[in-house]
Amino acid sequence: MKNLMLLGATGSIGSQVLEILRESKEYNLKSIAVGKNIKKAIEIINEFNPEFVSLQTKEDMEKLQAMYPNIQFGYGDTGLIQVATYLKEKGYLINSIVGMVGLKPTVAAIKAGHDILLANKETLVVAGNIIMDLVKKHNVRLIPIDSEHSTIFQCMMKERREDVSRIIITASGGSFRDKNRSELKDVTVEDALKHPNWQMGAKITIDSATMVNKGLEVIEAHYLFDLDYDKIETVIHPESIIHSMVEYNDGSIIAGLSYPDMRIPIAYALSTPKRNNYSFIEKMNFKKLFSLNFKPMDYNRYPLIKLAYEVGEMGGIMPLVYNTANEVAVRLFLNRKIKFLEIDEIINYAVNNTENINNPTLDDILKYDQILRRDLENKFEVK
Amino acid sequence: MKNLMLLGATGSIGSQVLEILRESKEYNLKSIAVGKNIKKAIEIINEFNPEFVSLQTKEDMEKLQAMYPNIQFGYGDTGLIQVATYLKEKGYLINSIVGMVGLKPTVAAIKAGHDILLANKETLVVAGNIIMDLVKKHNVRLIPIDSEHSTIFQCMMKERREDVSRIIITASGGSFRDKNRSELKDVTVEDALKHPNWQMGAKITIDSATMVNKGLEVIEAHYLFDLDYDKIETVIHPESIIHSMVEYNDGSIIAGLSYPDMRIPIAYALSTPKRNNYSFIEKMNFKKLFSLNFKPMDYNRYPLIKLAYEVGEMGGIMPLVYNTANEVAVRLFLNRKIKFLEIDEIINYAVNNTENINNPTLDDILKYDQILRRDLENKFEVK
Repeated sequence: MKNLMLLGATGSIGSQVLEILRESKEYNLKSIAVGKNIKKAIEIINEFNPEFVSLQTKEDMEKLQAMYPNIQFGYGDTGLIQVATYLKEKGYLINSIVGMVGLKPTVAAIKAGHDILLANKETLVVAGNIIMDLVKKHNVRLIPIDSEHSTIFQCMMKERREDVSRIIITASGGSFRDKNRSELKDVTVEDALKHPNWQMGAKITIDSATMVNKGLEVIEAHYLFDLDYDKIETVIHPESIIHSMVEYNDGSIIAGLSYPDMRIPIAYALSTPKRNNYSFIEKMNFKKLFSLNFKPMDYNRYPLIKLAYEVGEMGGIMPLVYNTANEVAVRLFLNRKIKFLEIDEIINYAVNNTENINNPTLDDILKYDQILRRDLENKFEVK
Repeated sequence: MKNLMLLGATGSIGSQVLEILRESKEYNLKSIAVGKNIKKAIEIINEFNPEFVSLQTKEDMEKLQAMYPNIQFGYGDTGLIQVATYLKEKGYLINSIVGMVGLKPTVAAIKAGHDILLANKETLVVAGNIIMDLVKKHNVRLIPIDSEHSTIFQCMMKERREDVSRIIITASGGSFRDKNRSELKDVTVEDALKHPNWQMGAKITIDSATMVNKGLEVIEAHYLFDLDYDKIETVIHPESIIHSMVEYNDGSIIAGLSYPDMRIPIAYALSTPKRNNYSFIEKMNFKKLFSLNFKPMDYNRYPLIKLAYEVGEMGGIMPLVYNTANEVAVRLFLNRKIKFLEIDEIINYAVNNTENINNPTLDDILKYDQILRRDLENKFEVK
């Protein structure tokens, strides 16, 4: 039996975690953090009986407290940390919350000695060095949940790191992959949210269309697998069947394939080193014709992935700047305050107007995130 | 330093082994067996200074004995065994000889405690149970050199065997993959020898066109990876880039890719668990467009692979019958004594007219091979 703590239980990844828990008898859900979807939160509480529940607001918490006198409750940022450190014995934190808010609970869980199953990209992007140092110091495991990083993990973790010549991360190309740059000028939010392969949340679907998602993954991979940026390549693979590849010195490439389904990397992260069979997973069918296509990543078409490599090489707080500016820009786009291509402008503006801080502390990171967020909102949010 | 014994030094695989030895300083070539190509044998002796050399005939041996008084020599079947057991300390036998003749030296090397790097398909196809039992008993390693089996080995050996749901072996389709069955009636030896992807010996190129090669690989995989036949699938993949795949219970597929180059699996077998870099290996290029295509295996177009599954399920001496009949048939085809489609007829005739022997001994296997070979030659060799 593995005891689990889950941040983001009502989100896209969280819901898929619950699907797995529903079918497997190997996991106990001990604590959860949910957002504003109280109806869904109640369903989860009734089905999984967590011992601790955190809500986004105090009001929502008080509402549920009245309904469930035997459950412990928390709310807000403190609640997230309470969820992530709820277990007294060693457990597993599944961090599937979106955004910078996922950082502090991850740090708290590592310090408490828990293994981390990480779907929150920001944790590694903005504080990769700090997190990886803590992981080593506290001797916990950090298992990625992203399909790309899960695949690299599976194809690499049992080989000698010095034998790896490069990794190749695949990108679907997102919802506008068949449009050229000038055709992007007037695309709508609705168009952007139509991802060809994956069912995901709104933020990550936009990030997929701008290729920022792949940029964040490159930076994540740099920290997670301790690889120089010149050993991290990206390639467009429209079918999203090959999730990533690891090339070795001898020329062999080991790759991971499946139909696009986030439940596969989630299930792997939960069960590794075992692999469990779930009824809802569709296995690949080799009894029909199919093709896997690859085309080179185009830095002119997708300048934001080039910028990701650049901020990654700069290090310090520059990956944070890239990420925070993107979070602000995507929110403005989803709220119809800016056009699609202005996402590029905002991120470039932020990167070009920030003085880097080398070896930032966690406090530096959290503080600069707040400053930058306010600055960008003041500058770009059309009233 | 690894000490090597090499059967088939002048052949296609043997020559590629030597290319690797030429660039790496990690290997000593201690003993070799060569065929009839004396000129090439002399070149190898001069370059690699083996301590023991075996030739096919006594005459050739006596010729070389006169030239190299400080080298020990042997010849014929006894010579092969002397090469395979030459080392007194633990070493590595690379068995890259073609045909049944590779069986006895493999058995001798295992009994002498050497690790086996196996390119000789017949060893496992005709005596899989016996070989795998010996491997366990003498606690040696059996590392496949075939690109398909090397890939499965790389994708599977570090996972739990009970988590494997199936393996998928890819097949290029061979030199006639664009022809339908009726168009095969009058194809020539020259046509058959034009393999689209791989540079290989004549026998295996014909086996690739008949799909017998893939059939033999299915049977090999059954023994090597201890998998039921219903967990071994084959798929046509014209580009020969994905060499094989392993699917796990959780729906993840781990696959091995590279440009087709036998030196990659040879280098892996030599260096594992390390992976060495060689200047002559062309790494995959993701800066250009490419596609990987897959189509279902067609048992009507390639009935001999269906037959391989059937003889595999029957077990006993039936895989031997399939293999020996194929060896006879391919030789007759290459000598222009029979037509291409008569290869099918001869193998089917042999399978249908053999009474199976369960749990055959090594002697049973070797004896029946001789009997069948003589019978088929008498029946099908046009005088």
